[in-house]
Amino acid sequence: MPKSISGPEIERLIQLLAKVPGLGPRSARRAALHLIKKKEQLLGPLASAMAEAVDKVRVCSVCGNVDTADPCSVCTDPRRDGTTLIVVEDVADLWALERAGAMNARFHVLGGTLSPLDGVGPDDINLKSLVSRVAAGGVNEVILAVNATVEGQTTAHYITDQLSGLGVKVTRLAHGVPVGGELDYLDEGTLSAALKSRTAF
Amino acid sequence: MPKSISGPEIERLIQLLAKVPGLGPRSARRAALHLIKKKEQLLGPLASAMAEAVDKVRVCSVCGNVDTADPCSVCTDPRRDGTTLIVVEDVADLWALERAGAMNARFHVLGGTLSPLDGVGPDDINLKSLVSRVAAGGVNEVILAVNATVEGQTTAHYITDQLSGLGVKVTRLAHGVPVGGELDYLDEGTLSAALKSRTAF
Repeated sequence: MPKSISGPEIERLIQLLAKVPGLGPRSARRAALHLIKKKEQLLGPLASAMAEAVDKVRVCSVCGNVDTADPCSVCTDPRRDGTTLIVVEDVADLWALERAGAMNARFHVLGGTLSPLDGVGPDDINLKSLVSRVAAGGVNEVILAVNATVEGQTTAHYITDQLSGLGVKVTRLAHGVPVGGELDYLDEGTLSAALKSRTAF
Repeated sequence: MPKSISGPEIERLIQLLAKVPGLGPRSARRAALHLIKKKEQLLGPLASAMAEAVDKVRVCSVCGNVDTADPCSVCTDPRRDGTTLIVVEDVADLWALERAGAMNARFHVLGGTLSPLDGVGPDDINLKSLVSRVAAGGVNEVILAVNATVEGQTTAHYITDQLSGLGVKVTRLAHGVPVGGELDYLDEGTLSAALKSRTAF
């Protein structure tokens, strides 16, 4: 779009919006126009919410979660069971598990997975802090809730190694048929795992 | 997501992002997390770009375009041909036509279409200002670049009525096969129109 039709400020807004995941160059234009039209109701509040987030959001020094408090509200919540620690790759995974609401445990966010080919080693993710959290005592079980990918499983094995000898139970998520899933659409690996881990009906 | 895992500021950011067209509740969470992770490179600049837009962007009092200047840069651009006026429904249409770059004309944004069923009458869209712009003289041709919908066409007829007697040529966009389009996928109306308006090869 030539600069001459709507000013550099709008152009800059569109360019930045296009970098938001879920928006491309085309939908960024549409979003910008919608925001400008709803200046008072949406654009203004969004601008200040973002400025506030820039100002206040930080990474929790204990678990790696993002929050406006450090340690974060998960780490300081007294109602949570501190004897169970769920290890996840990313904050998004923490959020997903919290939405499921199945465990009232604490978390540890790795911030990535081991990936030697990409040059990601043990020092590049939050592994040391995990080991020292467990070594400090009080944790009975570490649940490895990493993705079922090659990198995720490599990382899980490495963590199990590092935690051996600390007297802590290390578990992983069950493999099986997703709830609501149709067998016909599932891969062989998942079906084999589901058969192997069959439970009494 | 319970409030206790990441603070009300992040929750508010997600809620507002979910109102951006193209983002739903799920992708808003993903977007918020991405923005927080790229605080310096993306969230900060985006917050200030939005604040600047809130501050500076206004609707052009002449044509209805959005810009940081009023009259907007399209209206004040001396290189544009002021004798041709392209009437569009929305600023997005103005942008789309400008991207096509086919005409070096000025624009008039209606900000909607006549729609008696929805209670949108001639006074609810920028029609009066169009008539007075044309009546003021200097315009030779008004191109009605409204959507090929019932409302768009109703509006086009109404505008033609209003402009009759002002000594101005009123034209509309051609109907036909979209460039790159396949006949097999086109509706009968478009094909009939394309046949009727066939041109010498």
